[in-house]
Amino acid sequence: MSSDLLNSTYVRWMEEGPESDIVISSRVRLARNLQTVPFPHLLDEKTGQTCWQQVQQAWQKSSLKNELELLSFSNLTALDRQILMEKHLISPDHAEANKSYQGLLVDKDGLLAIMINEEDHLRIQCLLPGLQIEECYKKAQLVDDELESNLSFAFDEQRGYLTACPTNVGTGMRASVMLHLPAIVITGQLNAVVHYIGQLGLTVRGIYGEGSEAMGNFFQVSNQITLGQTEEDIIANLTAVTRQIIQQERTLRENLKNQMNIQLEDRVCRAYGILTNARVITSSEALGHLSEVRLGVNMGIIDGIQPYALNELVVAIRPAHLQKRAGREMDAGSRDIHRAEVIKEKLTSHKTKPDSPQAAGN
Amino acid sequence: MSSDLLNSTYVRWMEEGPESDIVISSRVRLARNLQTVPFPHLLDEKTGQTCWQQVQQAWQKSSLKNELELLSFSNLTALDRQILMEKHLISPDHAEANKSYQGLLVDKDGLLAIMINEEDHLRIQCLLPGLQIEECYKKAQLVDDELESNLSFAFDEQRGYLTACPTNVGTGMRASVMLHLPAIVITGQLNAVVHYIGQLGLTVRGIYGEGSEAMGNFFQVSNQITLGQTEEDIIANLTAVTRQIIQQERTLRENLKNQMNIQLEDRVCRAYGILTNARVITSSEALGHLSEVRLGVNMGIIDGIQPYALNELVVAIRPAHLQKRAGREMDAGSRDIHRAEVIKEKLTSHKTKPDSPQAAGN
Repeated sequence: MSSDLLNSTYVRWMEEGPESDIVISSRVRLARNLQTVPFPHLLDEKTGQTCWQQVQQAWQKSSLKNELELLSFSNLTALDRQILMEKHLISPDHAEANKSYQGLLVDKDGLLAIMINEEDHLRIQCLLPGLQIEECYKKAQLVDDELESNLSFAFDEQRGYLTACPTNVGTGMRASVMLHLPAIVITGQLNAVVHYIGQLGLTVRGIYGEGSEAMGNFFQVSNQITLGQTEEDIIANLTAVTRQIIQQERTLRENLKNQMNIQLEDRVCRAYGILTNARVITSSEALGHLSEVRLGVNMGIIDGIQPYALNELVVAIRPAHLQKRAGREMDAGSRDIHRAEVIKEKLTSHKTKPDSPQAAGN
Repeated sequence: MSSDLLNSTYVRWMEEGPESDIVISSRVRLARNLQTVPFPHLLDEKTGQTCWQQVQQAWQKSSLKNELELLSFSNLTALDRQILMEKHLISPDHAEANKSYQGLLVDKDGLLAIMINEEDHLRIQCLLPGLQIEECYKKAQLVDDELESNLSFAFDEQRGYLTACPTNVGTGMRASVMLHLPAIVITGQLNAVVHYIGQLGLTVRGIYGEGSEAMGNFFQVSNQITLGQTEEDIIANLTAVTRQIIQQERTLRENLKNQMNIQLEDRVCRAYGILTNARVITSSEALGHLSEVRLGVNMGIIDGIQPYALNELVVAIRPAHLQKRAGREMDAGSRDIHRAEVIKEKLTSHKTKPDSPQAAGN
């Protein structure tokens, strides 16, 4: 089942979900550590294997055995790990790792992925399309319970779950939503929104989490605090703030439509024209235009493109996915050419008619 | 017959001609003045009418009567005059004029146009597609002979034809070619070419002659000197220099193709994508992209677009043609919207299939 996740560009969180004109996906991850094993950064080959075997046995004994597949990094190439990272199934740091006691448990749809020996022994992640933070938590909690019945997690009555980094102690939970906020950016409201979010104990990051750039007007909003709040409080707070941001983004989209509709149409249609005609395009330029096309689709300016196709494109144009598709390593220049082909193909495949000048005979 | 010239965007010099991948059109104009009438800038209503009547009578008595139509500016609106100017049938200065003794004689195809009381009493102009300077001269000469048989032109044995401005004295001839030189511009060779042309007694101007901007990589090259050279010398010199420029442009196009083909394709295809998808576009941006598409068509990068359609578009997107088409006066902002429509329509009409996102239902 993992072969689909490694070979296709599609994964379930790309589908339509609640409020998915603005919320791409929701995610909850729970950091858990085994009581009797040192934290991952202190593991050597021997203690690492002990840890891996405990996890493996717990998985085999649980009902998760049929649902999840266990993948060790000793069986995954660097490219495969990057593919999983680009699909948001493992973190960038985890993708860089290559110990045999590192790996993941993952379901065939990529809705559930448990990183093994990333910063913590286990990071149970649930990813769902649209605004479904609570559903993510419920699903992650079931997995947590299932694993806990066969593993002893490091837990302190006062502090809660113990984690490798003190910022995760307590619930060990991080809940996040991936938002598409083009109108907030276009109208110059982003700084105000980020400031407001910060005051509410939440933080804004780029598309690939901590330290990653905010590209294509995609932003990840997550809770900052894991201690002193219950999981339910964190989820309720993030959901409420997300609903406020959605409201603001929608209002600003309406304003744009009323005040400068032709300019907005122009912007969206030019972005579409460039994406379907360029022969060379960088990732960052492509994400910018995809953001505008996504806005156009959601505002009814462009018909006939499925939003999920755009979510898929955002992943399909990343370096590892491009190289997987081409079946070879490519430098940045070759990727820019290949990226243009992928975009043209995906964007025009929904239509029966071509949308660019005929290829010349020679 | 004039109604076609005023209402359509098409005129014969837009067709294919010799070397028309680079030479849009050739033109020869002969400045002539009546012996017994003051130069145009000294005319008043009465002497102006005398002049007009002499020209009218000469035309009626000649074989040109059936071929040319006489149009007085008293019967043409300012918009009509601008239409004629945008088609290169009268000069920008003449389009600004509005005296009843000013006007033109023109054939139905716009190949022959005689401005009456522009800077000189008569400016006989012949315009042909591609590189046909000598053919232009022959045709203009026939008209000149025909008129001279019924009019006495101001002529001095020593100096030749006398003109309102001393720079035209002698042959009274200006021969010019309209060139499309994108590769020379892209590779940064333009200044060297302009310098070289200047040393050979020729001058380079923008698309609408003296003082006009060089847009869309279109350049008008013409003789500077009218005195001390025969018409044949002027034509031979301009033709030879034009052939050298053609050779250089072709060599540079080949180099571009060999050295950076994908970047060139990208540039051309993006230009096409923007032109067929934009909803608002300025004249100068449109001309820049049209230039790139023209290069792409001539280099075989884009198929299915006729070069003449591009020549026509260059005129069709000018302010007067846009307003004529819309049937109303428009400010610059409205013209930018209308221009985008015209371009999309023209560029996609050669195809049976649409090339842009489906229009949304709402």
